[in-house]
Amino acid sequence: MLNKSILNELQDLVGKDRCLTAPEDLMVYSHDVFCQSKPDVVILPTTTEEVSRILKIANREKIPVTPRGSATGLSGMCVPAQGGIVMAMSKMNKILEVNPEDRLAIAEPGVITNDLQVAVEAVGSFYPPDPASQTICQLGGNVATNAGGPRCVKYGVTRDYLLGLEAVLPSGEVVKAGGRPIKNVTGYDVTRLLCGSEGTLAVITKIIVKLIAKPEARRTLLVAFRSIDDASTTVSRIMAAGIVPRALELMDQRYIRNCENMYHLGLPTDAAAMLIIEVDGFAETVDRQANIAREFCENEGAFDIRLAQTEAEADRMWYARKIGSVALYRLSKTMVTEDATVPISQIPAMVRRLNEIEKKYNMVIYLLAHAGDGNMHPLMTYDPGNKDEAERVDNIIREIFEASIALGGTLTGEHGIGLAKKPFMHLEISPAELDLWKNIKKSFDPKGIMNPGKFV
Amino acid sequence: MLNKSILNELQDLVGKDRCLTAPEDLMVYSHDVFCQSKPDVVILPTTTEEVSRILKIANREKIPVTPRGSATGLSGMCVPAQGGIVMAMSKMNKILEVNPEDRLAIAEPGVITNDLQVAVEAVGSFYPPDPASQTICQLGGNVATNAGGPRCVKYGVTRDYLLGLEAVLPSGEVVKAGGRPIKNVTGYDVTRLLCGSEGTLAVITKIIVKLIAKPEARRTLLVAFRSIDDASTTVSRIMAAGIVPRALELMDQRYIRNCENMYHLGLPTDAAAMLIIEVDGFAETVDRQANIAREFCENEGAFDIRLAQTEAEADRMWYARKIGSVALYRLSKTMVTEDATVPISQIPAMVRRLNEIEKKYNMVIYLLAHAGDGNMHPLMTYDPGNKDEAERVDNIIREIFEASIALGGTLTGEHGIGLAKKPFMHLEISPAELDLWKNIKKSFDPKGIMNPGKFV
Repeated sequence: MLNKSILNELQDLVGKDRCLTAPEDLMVYSHDVFCQSKPDVVILPTTTEEVSRILKIANREKIPVTPRGSATGLSGMCVPAQGGIVMAMSKMNKILEVNPEDRLAIAEPGVITNDLQVAVEAVGSFYPPDPASQTICQLGGNVATNAGGPRCVKYGVTRDYLLGLEAVLPSGEVVKAGGRPIKNVTGYDVTRLLCGSEGTLAVITKIIVKLIAKPEARRTLLVAFRSIDDASTTVSRIMAAGIVPRALELMDQRYIRNCENMYHLGLPTDAAAMLIIEVDGFAETVDRQANIAREFCENEGAFDIRLAQTEAEADRMWYARKIGSVALYRLSKTMVTEDATVPISQIPAMVRRLNEIEKKYNMVIYLLAHAGDGNMHPLMTYDPGNKDEAERVDNIIREIFEASIALGGTLTGEHGIGLAKKPFMHLEISPAELDLWKNIKKSFDPKGIMNPGKFV
Repeated sequence: MLNKSILNELQDLVGKDRCLTAPEDLMVYSHDVFCQSKPDVVILPTTTEEVSRILKIANREKIPVTPRGSATGLSGMCVPAQGGIVMAMSKMNKILEVNPEDRLAIAEPGVITNDLQVAVEAVGSFYPPDPASQTICQLGGNVATNAGGPRCVKYGVTRDYLLGLEAVLPSGEVVKAGGRPIKNVTGYDVTRLLCGSEGTLAVITKIIVKLIAKPEARRTLLVAFRSIDDASTTVSRIMAAGIVPRALELMDQRYIRNCENMYHLGLPTDAAAMLIIEVDGFAETVDRQANIAREFCENEGAFDIRLAQTEAEADRMWYARKIGSVALYRLSKTMVTEDATVPISQIPAMVRRLNEIEKKYNMVIYLLAHAGDGNMHPLMTYDPGNKDEAERVDNIIREIFEASIALGGTLTGEHGIGLAKKPFMHLEISPAELDLWKNIKKSFDPKGIMNPGKFV
């Protein structure tokens, strides 16, 4: 608990309506999708100056500060593990500039990702990163977690679109990193060090993103396979051929059937696995790209290949991918999804390992994957109150991570470490590497107030 | 000078033939293109293990260590400002893997950039970064300086192609950062922190780069304008339209005439400025892209538009850009080139500022630019022995930097800080930002042995 005089100081600074301590407010701001821990106070700053003044107080008093966007994360990154202040950035939500001539946009961290995308597409520009939560998540959270999404297989992740940041250090100092120019090698790349730092280094208060030209056309294919091995082999063949689709998503039979049961989208429920393949670019190239992808699918025995004839049909195909996992919540008390990521050539091996693991533990693993970049999303439903089931889930998660690392992969392709993957970091990271991270953390945050209790 | 017993220890470690102290060897390894400072010893390691053992000795004895590639840099980044050890990476020059299926290649730091490019293009892949020195520079140097090049306007810089690194800390600890997966958000982005760190943090010993598909076709245009303002306006119009050329290079009349005098390439010497515009992609799109670019040029009054009919003709156009600046060396004792970079929309303003500055100081500023990303390369020839001329050059450089910063630009788009731009860092970087960099530096290198005397 914060002592009364500090709380008063914070309330004097931003007003009581933006410095919340009611139990119901603390509850609302205590969780992300899967993890939970209660803060002592929730502050909603509106300016960089306020962020700086709050951090000065927190640093003086050694109060934990956990920055938070829309809390759509899946690993507990924005959950205040050690209480203290949750700094919710949702009121710093202005788009400050959209500039197609300089190929950039500038936004505050609380801007909803999709709002920025709509604004830049209105002037013919494009901001590619598209996490599944894009209609509710905030840009600041995307930067802090280096968010990905289906389109990232072709266009890269959040990190690849950052030109510069403004951030406030725990000391209250405001620093700029990068800036407006497309090319910039002045000094250390603090921009990308902050990107993916999960709120452990500083509070991001302004974001300059690079824009690209909006692709003229797209073609969307939904393809059914007789075996998941055929589907995953197709993925690695397509990627090796250099036809980089805008998205290349894999779903297995159980996922498809469960999704179809709930949403009645007309999915091929007889397929052992299904791919959604989307290509884009100049209008005159998309049919050829789609045909090349189709050929690869046919070569691996695809038995049902549908090309979306309208935007609406394409959107319906994406519906299965984007919210199909929600249908899993009906099956048990909760759900867990991982994002172990392997080199593309190892996708078939990883799929086989998942099959072995589910047999060993007698649990169903639903499979969804941003397959084009090796980013697997195995899903399980279970009852956390059932001790035996919860234990099996824990073991499966551990074995999934071990399998991923053994295949040259990583613990997390896009969800982040947060609280959920902290126990597994030693599988990927050496003591020397962790020591280095701790030293980097200290160089920003000597008193350790930024999001303590997390990966570093 | 190193004391004799340390020198013996180093020579015992790698052998005398890779631990050089002869005056002529020290001379050879004392400079880059523009800067010079002599080391006490030059060591050429062949393995990560050797690098680690050398660094342990250097760290114990607090001996400066400056890693070095081919020394094609222009700012003194690999020049040992405080003597000590130059660690030349040229013997760690193996391409370890080219893997189009996983879209990656793995190489040691001493691999020549162009050798890697040839190797990956042989299997239909593409590694875009193309610094002008690509046929002689080393990949490790490219990473340490975040090297750019003409193609970076479309494809991004070295940083954008790094999946992972192996590096040795000053303590001798070997650390990995990133890895084989395309997507990876495990922990801090040490990969990109090392990229562009100019040898001040660690020695890079292995590099994993991302590959993309080799573009099927290109079209190259050489376009002559009646004024440099027309040419620079064309650049910002093309970029705003979202036709992102693979390269968009600007040269002014003096540069063109001097180049033509030496090489007789048939350049339009009556043009006030010339653009090289190159588009690439799927075969069916390049003519349309070239036509759109042509239209923009015509709208701004271009009077001579040549489309290369053969690869050889395109290469001849590029010849003017790639080695034309060498022709400037004939005009005086030496040459200096800067790389102040501005937002694209500010190119015309920056060009006007350069005109004012050259009039004020009565010096000729030749202009070359990666115009598509606002990366200006003003060039001057002068006699450093002529005090008045050298002083005017110093003043011009300062005013160029001031102009760039005032227009929202940066000191360096791709050449780096090194020694040359250290005096101007305060124009762009606040004391708080510099303090942060110093803290980051300490987190890697507490004793300050890595490339001391540089930007941090």
